[in-house]
Amino acid sequence: MSIAASAVTFLGQQADLSNLKLANYTIDPSAIGAKEVVLRAIAAPINPSDVLQARGGYVPPPYLHDLDANTKQVYVGGNEGVFEVTHVGSDVTSVQPGDRVIPSLSGFGTWRTALVAAIDDPRKTAGGKVDAFVKVPADLKEAEAATLTINPATAYQIFHNYHKLEAGDWIVQNAGTSQVSQYITQLAKSRGVKTLSVVRDGKSKAELDKLYELGATSVIDESTLLSSDFAAKLKEIVGDGHVRLALNSVGGATASALFGAVGQDGYFISYGASSGDPQVTINTSQQLVNNISVVPYWLTGNSKRDPQSRIDTVKEVIKLYEQGVFRIPDVQEIKLDGDIASFFVKAIQSPGKKVVLFD
Amino acid sequence: MSIAASAVTFLGQQADLSNLKLANYTIDPSAIGAKEVVLRAIAAPINPSDVLQARGGYVPPPYLHDLDANTKQVYVGGNEGVFEVTHVGSDVTSVQPGDRVIPSLSGFGTWRTALVAAIDDPRKTAGGKVDAFVKVPADLKEAEAATLTINPATAYQIFHNYHKLEAGDWIVQNAGTSQVSQYITQLAKSRGVKTLSVVRDGKSKAELDKLYELGATSVIDESTLLSSDFAAKLKEIVGDGHVRLALNSVGGATASALFGAVGQDGYFISYGASSGDPQVTINTSQQLVNNISVVPYWLTGNSKRDPQSRIDTVKEVIKLYEQGVFRIPDVQEIKLDGDIASFFVKAIQSPGKKVVLFD
Repeated sequence: MSIAASAVTFLGQQADLSNLKLANYTIDPSAIGAKEVVLRAIAAPINPSDVLQARGGYVPPPYLHDLDANTKQVYVGGNEGVFEVTHVGSDVTSVQPGDRVIPSLSGFGTWRTALVAAIDDPRKTAGGKVDAFVKVPADLKEAEAATLTINPATAYQIFHNYHKLEAGDWIVQNAGTSQVSQYITQLAKSRGVKTLSVVRDGKSKAELDKLYELGATSVIDESTLLSSDFAAKLKEIVGDGHVRLALNSVGGATASALFGAVGQDGYFISYGASSGDPQVTINTSQQLVNNISVVPYWLTGNSKRDPQSRIDTVKEVIKLYEQGVFRIPDVQEIKLDGDIASFFVKAIQSPGKKVVLFD
Repeated sequence: MSIAASAVTFLGQQADLSNLKLANYTIDPSAIGAKEVVLRAIAAPINPSDVLQARGGYVPPPYLHDLDANTKQVYVGGNEGVFEVTHVGSDVTSVQPGDRVIPSLSGFGTWRTALVAAIDDPRKTAGGKVDAFVKVPADLKEAEAATLTINPATAYQIFHNYHKLEAGDWIVQNAGTSQVSQYITQLAKSRGVKTLSVVRDGKSKAELDKLYELGATSVIDESTLLSSDFAAKLKEIVGDGHVRLALNSVGGATASALFGAVGQDGYFISYGASSGDPQVTINTSQQLVNNISVVPYWLTGNSKRDPQSRIDTVKEVIKLYEQGVFRIPDVQEIKLDGDIASFFVKAIQSPGKKVVLFD
């Protein structure tokens, strides 16, 4: 029996998203290849990077999809999502019907209700093709499972790829309320590493309390970071502690001030520029005396160089959820209703991090 | 027979150098220890870092010296120099009278006419104590031998420690006429690596010609670097070449503009701030997309972490002189005349890189 499916597709990138279109197509599970599976969507987030991708910023999608004989060579939106395996080809042993899986690499096109997919990802690592999917445990919440591969994976790699952080070390970060910062905070807390999070001025006490509940050691606002007595304030906060990592996803004056906090052999890591100002000014005398490395972090770049590293990271992230180290930061869970393209286009327009729950 | 010696000493760092004093002392070669040698000075440079050290900037000297019973616990100026071995203790086999040697590590106190020294340096590496001296071949010029351990060693490590540079790759550097830049230029030329050197506005044709003679591929002035069409100019100069390293020893606007030239997987390396402005502004979007690392380089820091690395580097530098890759950039050679302290203090006041030739 064939399955009616639909997707949010686009062809060519348009700033106004007018190219996002509904595509309806059918899937015949009896006709799938020996190494293919049929997947039914459970949940998929709408990430800023997904939207940027359709608007023409960021990186273009890596794959064009043939959804059926009528809908060929289109991009499908979305880079994260969790699916249920409903049918498997005759040679598939790694998953079985009923399993919940996530695409192990980005660019999969997750904004679709159902699809046929190969069990091997065509992207190769040094060791050969990689598994296209990672199985997720049944006890992970839908929204948690749907958002494993980007924000918590970024936090995990930033935390582990630079400094061997020891209990008592400090991380300073701007955009303290961002998803990545919240995962960093939880991970640091679990390892005894302290965090100083900088948040925008005017956050409510409830928002700050939420960060402290997640495990933040100290939270200050941008005005405090930019004030002339920040050095004294920092000393008061960290005492004899070492600031090993500074994490910048904001840019501009806030980032430049954050650089001043980095200590001996520290890393200043930029992974975004949400202020719209990517300029950061560093003091090279401080850099030389303290031996500070100023480096970029980009999950997508790392994953292109070494796809398996992302899969390994996602498996570690799953463990952190199972150990209770991670819980998902606030997201709006919204139930898919009506045609998928209209629904996603409308959802993109309203603010806040969202996870769409499919039927 | 005892030897009359004298040194430029100081105790406490003074910005006006009023603490630099003459010390006269005598050496009794018959009284040296089994693992000691007597050295006679041949040549020693006056480096800006030597002067900064006596003025209280930079790093303090690592050792206090006992010159004789009357002159104890003083610092001796100078971190580089070449000496002749005149006497050796009964257990010394690594050098013999007549050999020319240089102190393998900085902080030796080279502004003195003769001295008694231990053959092992007390600083330890993972492998144990290091040799206090490196023998230099007799055919190296005095000024070349006296200046092996700082500028050419810095150039060698910068060239080798970051990117595996391949023929056709590009290095961009400001302070194009500096000693380090000139060694970088010669080393790059010998490996088929291209250099774009930025020099201060208003340099004479003769000065530019000198850089081209050393092997510079292209030389531009700071105004060209800072102009709005520098990107187009750069494209014209490097074509499809990759800029792998940017070397900054100037700081300020010139350094920030230089950052814009760095290509994929490149390094932006700061090792000084001669403009007096250590601030450098980097574009983190460019940094992320091109995966650029912004790192400091400090020979002294490296040598403290791994003293043997400096000795190994100096041996490589000697080979480069012997292979004809390196020739010494212009220095004023001045003959020691009168009392050593008055002579050095006077020499420090006049401009230009100097090497003092002892009697």
